[in-house]
Amino acid sequence: MFVLVNLKAYPCDPVAVATAARDVAEETGVRVAVSPQAADLARVAETGVETWAQHVSPNAHGSHTGSTLAEAAAENGAVGTLINHSERRLKLADIDAALEAADRADLETVVCANNPAQSGAAAALGPDAVAVEPPELIGGDDSVATADPGIVEDAVAAVEAVDPAVDLYCGAGVSTGDDVSAAGELGAEGVLLASGVAKADDPEAVLRDLTRPYAE
Amino acid sequence: MFVLVNLKAYPCDPVAVATAARDVAEETGVRVAVSPQAADLARVAETGVETWAQHVSPNAHGSHTGSTLAEAAAENGAVGTLINHSERRLKLADIDAALEAADRADLETVVCANNPAQSGAAAALGPDAVAVEPPELIGGDDSVATADPGIVEDAVAAVEAVDPAVDLYCGAGVSTGDDVSAAGELGAEGVLLASGVAKADDPEAVLRDLTRPYAE
Amino acid sequence: MFVLVNLKAYPCDPVAVATAARDVAEETGVRVAVSPQAADLARVAETGVETWAQHVSPNAHGSHTGSTLAEAAAENGAVGTLINHSERRLKLADIDAALEAADRADLETVVCANNPAQSGAAAALGPDAVAVEPPELIGGDDSVATADPGIVEDAVAAVEAVDPAVDLYCGAGVSTGDDVSAAGELGAEGVLLASGVAKADDPEAVLRDLTRPYAE
Amino acid sequence: MFVLVNLKAYPCDPVAVATAARDVAEETGVRVAVSPQAADLARVAETGVETWAQHVSPNAHGSHTGSTLAEAAAENGAVGTLINHSERRLKLADIDAALEAADRADLETVVCANNPAQSGAAAALGPDAVAVEPPELIGGDDSVATADPGIVEDAVAAVEAVDPAVDLYCGAGVSTGDDVSAAGELGAEGVLLASGVAKADDPEAVLRDLTRPYAE
Repeated sequence: MFVLVNLKAYPCDPVAVATAARDVAEETGVRVAVSPQAADLARVAETGVETWAQHVSPNAHGSHTGSTLAEAAAENGAVGTLINHSERRLKLADIDAALEAADRADLETVVCANNPAQSGAAAALGPDAVAVEPPELIGGDDSVATADPGIVEDAVAAVEAVDPAVDLYCGAGVSTGDDVSAAGELGAEGVLLASGVAKADDPEAVLRDLTRPYAE
Repeated sequence: MFVLVNLKAYPCDPVAVATAARDVAEETGVRVAVSPQAADLARVAETGVETWAQHVSPNAHGSHTGSTLAEAAAENGAVGTLINHSERRLKLADIDAALEAADRADLETVVCANNPAQSGAAAALGPDAVAVEPPELIGGDDSVATADPGIVEDAVAAVEAVDPAVDLYCGAGVSTGDDVSAAGELGAEGVLLASGVAKADDPEAVLRDLTRPYAE
Repeated sequence: MFVLVNLKAYPCDPVAVATAARDVAEETGVRVAVSPQAADLARVAETGVETWAQHVSPNAHGSHTGSTLAEAAAENGAVGTLINHSERRLKLADIDAALEAADRADLETVVCANNPAQSGAAAALGPDAVAVEPPELIGGDDSVATADPGIVEDAVAAVEAVDPAVDLYCGAGVSTGDDVSAAGELGAEGVLLASGVAKADDPEAVLRDLTRPYAE
Repeated sequence: MFVLVNLKAYPCDPVAVATAARDVAEETGVRVAVSPQAADLARVAETGVETWAQHVSPNAHGSHTGSTLAEAAAENGAVGTLINHSERRLKLADIDAALEAADRADLETVVCANNPAQSGAAAALGPDAVAVEPPELIGGDDSVATADPGIVEDAVAAVEAVDPAVDLYCGAGVSTGDDVSAAGELGAEGVLLASGVAKADDPEAVLRDLTRPYAE
């Protein structure tokens, strides 16, 4: 099970969350990564936590002011990247190009999708994983795995049908270890979450609970 | 074989091209459609030619100033629509929503894609057809079917693997009947073209040549 | 006073609203225009009402699939166009290019803006008019001219300071003749409205009330 | 005179250029800043050079995956930011919001513009400076100040007419001290440049030449 914590643009301390995530990952043996804003990548990576970018540009080196290249993410410590998050939707051709860019920079990739059909489409582009996140559940109190288990099962099947080598993650409303267990039982090999950790009074306690079902 | 003529924003007379296309379709029995700018849909449809929109909004009725709803396209005579043309690339989620919108309005759909991987992704969203058009060949003198036959074959295979019910069309550089034949031999069930007809001195003559290999 | 009715993508009958607007304009001598979706321009213009586009592309003739050129709007009967409506925000450079495109096609122009600062910025690009529409009031029950009169006065002043030849219109929540009077007293030379007419049970009655204060 | 070096997404070593810029600024007394990709801000700022972001999001803290907040840029050492660079054009309303965001984070601001009209528009939004950069000259061998001096003079006048408190910078093709002198003589109080330094074999030598006319 992979727990990927997206810090979005929340007013949290990225280094504090990263330190907590690193400690919980080490203690539990569960894979936990933190995905900060591009400008915070270097400071987050310095903690030793597995560090992911929230987005990378579909471009290669060149005249692209205001973009974050996959290469720049990697040079500052990222080992993976989200692509096409629901708050940073990309054109189909740009998802394809961003995957190619991530590949050049040796970044692991998760392409986000709203529903099973889009999950299958994303899988056809050959990412490492697809994350299905129903937009209406993002940031809410109900976990996708309990509020809409069918969408996770359908996404697992859609991805499997297109390319069995692509993992399926899920996200939206995940905030407890029980939510993570439920996701795993539906076939998800990872979970994406954000506010559950980033807005928590005690992120470390939340991370400990999230990883509990899979702790060694 | 389906010949779909995209008028883009070329300075041609859309009604004249539409009239020629209608006549050639009637004479040859080959299916020919014309896709004008949204503002020209009604005038083109009045000629009796099969009329397609170049794009429809992913939105439903509501507060969406400056968009062209699938419903508005249909009410003005369109029976189909391009989606995600390389000059009007959409976000993955919006391709999905535009397909749903087109379905509500009973429009036939062709989703455009740059390459075989994107063609497979597009097929996963359930359009009527996918059109593969290598951007570097669009508007050029070399037909995709002769300049890069592998891309057509690979796209046919990619779409077939994802959903055999989805047709594969191809486009870019198509301008003669021989190009259309070559596309058909590679497994394409339709061709998209634009400048070859829209910028021709005699669009009717070009259309007659294009349809020749499949004329009854 | 200029009353500009934006039909957005509402499920109204554009020809019925256009006919009502034409009749009210003729009876009252007040200038009234209707702005439908691009695909409906020709049918609306055929009623004889003053017809406006909701948006035009910053592009000139060329390979621009899925766009609505100013030239195509004009050829189908439009005599003016909105630019940068809050539901179709444009990049600054594209507002500039769309104004140039509209000028080539002899379309009158209204650039929309959220606040007085943006109104001044828009005026610097030389449109015929700027329309200030606070986004938080759009579609609501409170008219900008009564809910936030300061924003209209400040926008009038901002535009006047940059270019006195540019008119200032206002919009958001306008639905009655009293709202139009209030706008006029604040210095607005036109009003934009949408749902007040497009969603009305009796659009003609609403238009009659809207134009009453300025009827001859 | 302010020399602002935009590293875009060039494959240069941002720390090496930053170190050179810091040294030249210290030796000559001329203000020199370096603007790297967001992910490189912290490493560039650590050199002690004046550090600028290439872009900041119009958003405030919240659910905005894949954006770079002004606050995050500032926390990682940026003291200023470009906004609306020609390779990262923004909607008018977003330029306004990005300026507000930069103001909250105490970042100095330069809004880029293509021509004098857009420069005046940008000035109406109240940035610290506007930079006029004719797109056709960007990345080329001819400096804006010699190839098109009229555009600089007209932009100085357009900005002055709207808000005399706003400085005017210019960019495109600037690569030598003579280009900087020419810009200054036309009324520019700063220059933007990119490839001239970032692609140079010896960036420090180029920076030394650029600052020569204004060295103490």
